[in-house]
Amino acid sequence: MQTFIFKNQPRIVATGTIAGPKECAGVVGKYVDKTLLDDMYGESTYEKAECKMLTYAISRAMENAGVEEKDVDMLISGDLLNQIISASFAARDFDFPFLGVYGACSTLAESYALAAALINAGYVKKVVAATGSHFSSAERQYRYPLELGNTRPPQSQWTVTGAGGAFIADTGSSIAITSATFGKVVDFGITDVNNMGAAMAPAACDTLLQHLRDTGRNADYYDLILTGDLGALGSRILKDLVWEKGVDIQSNHVDCGEIVYNVIEDEFQGGSGAGCCAVVFNSYIYDKLKKREINRVLLAATGALLSTVSSAQGESIPCICHAVAIENV
Amino acid sequence: MQTFIFKNQPRIVATGTIAGPKECAGVVGKYVDKTLLDDMYGESTYEKAECKMLTYAISRAMENAGVEEKDVDMLISGDLLNQIISASFAARDFDFPFLGVYGACSTLAESYALAAALINAGYVKKVVAATGSHFSSAERQYRYPLELGNTRPPQSQWTVTGAGGAFIADTGSSIAITSATFGKVVDFGITDVNNMGAAMAPAACDTLLQHLRDTGRNADYYDLILTGDLGALGSRILKDLVWEKGVDIQSNHVDCGEIVYNVIEDEFQGGSGAGCCAVVFNSYIYDKLKKREINRVLLAATGALLSTVSSAQGESIPCICHAVAIENV
Repeated sequence: MQTFIFKNQPRIVATGTIAGPKECAGVVGKYVDKTLLDDMYGESTYEKAECKMLTYAISRAMENAGVEEKDVDMLISGDLLNQIISASFAARDFDFPFLGVYGACSTLAESYALAAALINAGYVKKVVAATGSHFSSAERQYRYPLELGNTRPPQSQWTVTGAGGAFIADTGSSIAITSATFGKVVDFGITDVNNMGAAMAPAACDTLLQHLRDTGRNADYYDLILTGDLGALGSRILKDLVWEKGVDIQSNHVDCGEIVYNVIEDEFQGGSGAGCCAVVFNSYIYDKLKKREINRVLLAATGALLSTVSSAQGESIPCICHAVAIENV
Repeated sequence: MQTFIFKNQPRIVATGTIAGPKECAGVVGKYVDKTLLDDMYGESTYEKAECKMLTYAISRAMENAGVEEKDVDMLISGDLLNQIISASFAARDFDFPFLGVYGACSTLAESYALAAALINAGYVKKVVAATGSHFSSAERQYRYPLELGNTRPPQSQWTVTGAGGAFIADTGSSIAITSATFGKVVDFGITDVNNMGAAMAPAACDTLLQHLRDTGRNADYYDLILTGDLGALGSRILKDLVWEKGVDIQSNHVDCGEIVYNVIEDEFQGGSGAGCCAVVFNSYIYDKLKKREINRVLLAATGALLSTVSSAQGESIPCICHAVAIENV
C-alpha cells in the first residue's frame, strides 16, 4: 500500500502565508497574513526576497499557533531554487533541526506528509512545514533573464511569488492530516518545459487513483480534490485522465494554479511554483476548513522534476504527485 | 530531544556500490560492487553518468538483498545536482514511490534516518535509500568548466565519482539502524567555497554532541564515528571542536573523505560529495560491520547547503549534519 494512515491524526494548528501584489489581487488577497506591495520585500536580490518570504511564513505559522521557537521540534522545507537555498538559509535562522526535501512544486504536500508521519509515529510533537517560490528567481533560474522580455507561449504558467507553511502538531485544532500517499515518478515523455500542466497531470492521476484504491474511498468522499499547480490546461487533462479510469472529479476538483489569479491575461494557464498551493491552501482553503465550509480536502500537489541541464540534454520531464488527506475530525 | 530512537531496529540488509577508477584505486577498490574503468560509464554527459551510477547502486542494493522491484515500498534519494535530477531520473526507472530529499553531502545519512524512521513506525517494510555524486558534474555545476584547467587551492577536496545505497528493511540482517539525530543548520560565517571542511566541521560537532547528550552515551560507545566528507583539515577541526567541549574522538573518528583516496596529491584534503560516504560506508565500512570487525558506527554525514547563486550574492555557507547510529544487534 502506498498510503500511510495516520491514526493519531496530527493537526494543522495554524498556517502562515505571504504573497506578492499580483497574487494578492486575486482570491487569496484577503486571507494571506501579509501582502507585499513590492515583491523585492526590501531585499537586494530575488533569491533573498524568496528566502525572506519563506522565513516569514515559518515564523508566522509559529506565531499564529502561539508557539515559540523553543517549542518546535523540526522544520521540514524545500523550494525550487538550486540546492533549495531558500529553505536552507531560512532554516539557519531557527534553532531547531532541519529536514530538507525536494519535490519541486509537490514540496508542500511532501513536507506535510512527512511531518504528519513523524508526528503520528511519536518521534516529534511539533513541526513547521513550509515552502515558497518567487516569479523572478524562478524565471531567471529556469527560463530567461526577465530583461530579455521573452514572449510566453499560451501553455505557460506564472510562478507564484509567495510562501506558506503550517505549524503541525499532535493536538491543537480540529483540522487533521489523516493519511498521505507518496507518489511514484511518472514520465509521459513531455519535453516542452512551457507545458508543465500536461507533463504533471499523469502523475496527479496516478497518485489520486492510488490514494482512492488504498483508502477504499470514492472521489466524492472529498469535498475538494485540490491539485497544486496543474493550471487550467493540466487540470482539464487530469479530469479526462481519471474519467477514463472511471473516476469523476468534475464537480470537486480545483487546481490552485487555476484559481490563484483573478485575471487570466499574462498568466495564461494560471499560477505555478511551490508557492502556489502553499499560498492558496494555507490561506483561502485553510480558512474554509476552519469555518467548516468544507471538511475533507485531498491536497495533491504535483512537481516537475526537471532541471535546465536535463532539458538541455534532451530529457523529458519526470513528474511526481504527493497527496495528503486533510479533514475536520 | 533531537534524536529518534528506533526500538524496532530497522536493518541494513544489503548495500550496492559503484565508483570511478580514481576512487577504486583507493581503499574501497576491493569492496565496491562495480568498478568503472571510465567515469563516463558509456554515457554522453557527466550528469547522465551520475544518474546511471545511482540507478546501478539502487538496483544492486536490491539484487544483493535478493529482492525484486515489486517488493520495495519506497525510494528515498537525493543528490548534489540542481533539482536533484540524478535521483529523480533514477526514480523514474523504478515502480515504487519516491521521496526526494536534499541535504547536500549529508544526504545519505538523511535518507537512512528517514528510511529507518518510516520502517520503525510500520508505514513501510522495505526501502531503498541511496545517493551519489560525480566529480565532473559537480565541478562544472559548482566551480569551473574542467576545460579551464583551474588550479585548486590546498584546502580543496575532490568530489567522489560514485554512488551507494542500501536496502533497508524491518528484518533480514544483524546490522540495525538504532537511532538517528537530525541536525540543525549551523553557519560560522565561512565564505570560502574551497574550504568546505572548515565550514562543515561545526555542524558535525553540533550534531555529534547532541546525539551523545540525547542518548546518554560517551563517544567511546562507538567503535567508529564516521563523518562524511570533512576531509583531512575538517576532520582535525572537528576533533578540536569536540575536544573543547570535553569529548575525545581522537581514537575512534575517521572521515570518509580523508580515507577514500590512497594518495593525497591532487585531492589535497581528500574526497567530498554525496557519493563520498555513500561509497565508503556502503562498501568498506559495511563489510567491516558484516564481519563484526566493528560493531557500532555513528555515521555523521555533513552537508554544505550553499549554491553558486548564494555564494555569488555574498552569503556564507550554512551547513548541516545528520547522524545515524548503525549497530550489530
